[in-house]
Amino acid sequence: MKAAVYRGPGDIRIEDRPDPSVEEPTDAIIRVTHTAVCGSDLWFYRGEEEKEEGEPVGHEPMGIVEEVGDDVRSVEPGDRVFAPFSTSCGECEFCRKGLHTSCPNGSFWGGEGRGAQGEKLRAPQADGTLVRVPDRYADDEDTLEALLPLTDVMCTGHHAAVCADVQAGDTAVVIGDGAVGLCAVLASKRLGAERIIAVGHHEDRLELAEELGATETVASRGEEAIEEVQELTYGGANHVLECVGAESSLETAAGVVRPGGNIGYVGVPHVEDPSFLQPLFLSNASFTGGPAPVRAYAEELMEDVLQGTLDPSPIFTKIVDLDSVPEGYEAMDERDAIKVLVKVDQ
Amino acid sequence: MKAAVYRGPGDIRIEDRPDPSVEEPTDAIIRVTHTAVCGSDLWFYRGEEEKEEGEPVGHEPMGIVEEVGDDVRSVEPGDRVFAPFSTSCGECEFCRKGLHTSCPNGSFWGGEGRGAQGEKLRAPQADGTLVRVPDRYADDEDTLEALLPLTDVMCTGHHAAVCADVQAGDTAVVIGDGAVGLCAVLASKRLGAERIIAVGHHEDRLELAEELGATETVASRGEEAIEEVQELTYGGANHVLECVGAESSLETAAGVVRPGGNIGYVGVPHVEDPSFLQPLFLSNASFTGGPAPVRAYAEELMEDVLQGTLDPSPIFTKIVDLDSVPEGYEAMDERDAIKVLVKVDQ
Repeated sequence: MKAAVYRGPGDIRIEDRPDPSVEEPTDAIIRVTHTAVCGSDLWFYRGEEEKEEGEPVGHEPMGIVEEVGDDVRSVEPGDRVFAPFSTSCGECEFCRKGLHTSCPNGSFWGGEGRGAQGEKLRAPQADGTLVRVPDRYADDEDTLEALLPLTDVMCTGHHAAVCADVQAGDTAVVIGDGAVGLCAVLASKRLGAERIIAVGHHEDRLELAEELGATETVASRGEEAIEEVQELTYGGANHVLECVGAESSLETAAGVVRPGGNIGYVGVPHVEDPSFLQPLFLSNASFTGGPAPVRAYAEELMEDVLQGTLDPSPIFTKIVDLDSVPEGYEAMDERDAIKVLVKVDQ
Repeated sequence: MKAAVYRGPGDIRIEDRPDPSVEEPTDAIIRVTHTAVCGSDLWFYRGEEEKEEGEPVGHEPMGIVEEVGDDVRSVEPGDRVFAPFSTSCGECEFCRKGLHTSCPNGSFWGGEGRGAQGEKLRAPQADGTLVRVPDRYADDEDTLEALLPLTDVMCTGHHAAVCADVQAGDTAVVIGDGAVGLCAVLASKRLGAERIIAVGHHEDRLELAEELGATETVASRGEEAIEEVQELTYGGANHVLECVGAESSLETAAGVVRPGGNIGYVGVPHVEDPSFLQPLFLSNASFTGGPAPVRAYAEELMEDVLQGTLDPSPIFTKIVDLDSVPEGYEAMDERDAIKVLVKVDQ
């Protein structure tokens, strides 16, 4: 089969790899039909994160079940499924608690036969990991493209909203205009936020944020952005969704949160100077987040997608085939695309 | 009047200062009878925090009301009162919300006529700031010594427990064996925690922690402490009370919290290397804290002290008079005393 492989910073190649096969009775083999390139893939692409040379990559798979191990009960060959960015057993304390990303039996995608940017995939813990798309919608291309972001960014934006305790009637400030920030706007709107203030640096993305539900946008940076949001919120917002993980965005989050408010953060913190901890402390705000437990949210959000009340597909501003995945990385790296959809023709 | 004054790192002196007088109709003048030296006073005492030379110090006052301004309604001359480490109006959004430390009309003690380690004190916003001790207990020395920690450390320990969401039946891990950590043990016990694991470095303080309610203690440091707590809690605690604010204690907190758990932190973070943010993020734990809204908790905790079910006075391991306040700082600095009680004879 063909699969995207990491060959070094800035170097993704499509290579021939052995087809994966069932290794454990809980495995399923997926023929990948749709996948995506993620903002978090850029960390290793830019050499800012370690990655073993030659490792198959990608972690947002959707496809058709081809084969299942003897113990798999929830899916069967022919089913359309998608999977979160990490696998989970579905049975442990943390899966029961809705915290599938802390499942001790789970792991992230990647490695031989387990990169989602490839033709086939071995999915371990299939019952606890895979989400089955109801047959009625299983071949509707528009629906599938709207569901694909549920593998990662849509559920991550939702996690930011949940961690920031966004509820009906609230004012939410979303920091970051990447795919996760845009999904956080959608999530806040879905939860009933009355005002959604999107903070970002790109006019085109902020325009999209408005289309997706932002009531106001702030395009400035640093202290200026903090002052603008403080003014718009009469002294800070009770619900702040930090969707980047950079030092500057954490500083903005701590600077705009209202005393006693809630910051939900979902970008892996890349921080050298932890100055944001001082205003965070003084504000008595809660700071809650982490890797989104996608599997816990996927069915609830899928319901809305199938009902037509949630559609994150506008975040895909570029579509490529599997052979063009390297161009997809380039477009993401150069910010020519918000997020790249990969359609795997087979 | 006599008052303790900061003259530089390691240099606290008792000097003659003008008596304070009513300046605003909302002021009260307090004749201080009891006060204390706080672990947070050591930051400027050790030169690790800026403080203006010649500034009167102290922020944990208890005393008798001598005079009140025309608008003061809740206290009158002769009343025994104590005050939180910061003043508050009692009427704004944040005071109503129980977040008195974010009151825009409030301020911290210190400055001319406003240092609590002195004979007299001008208390602004008397109605919103002062807590009146019921007459029946107003002259009972044991009760007063048990109430004095409610000006700061007892309410701060309670805040850690509230932020860590400690409830009846829970397992709580308290990091830090200083006055705040010991009060956090008391607070966890009061809230019904079933197991309380105290983590510290001083055998005598950990023994006191056990007397106050800790069911287990851990005396090791760093990775070893994390491993011990992980083992005791079968994989991490859902409720972690970080009562120091140092880099190492934050690392311990992030290392022992159970995925999806809650860290309450009440020590001002003094962090250069923010490595603890990585395990914090991966754990999806909430991280909540800040300066304790003492005024919001004081009456509830006073009730328990008056009922005899809460007694934080064992944290006072040294008693001095006002003239000996400099020795009190020395004892705290050298860790000869956990906390110093100052009895002001006048």
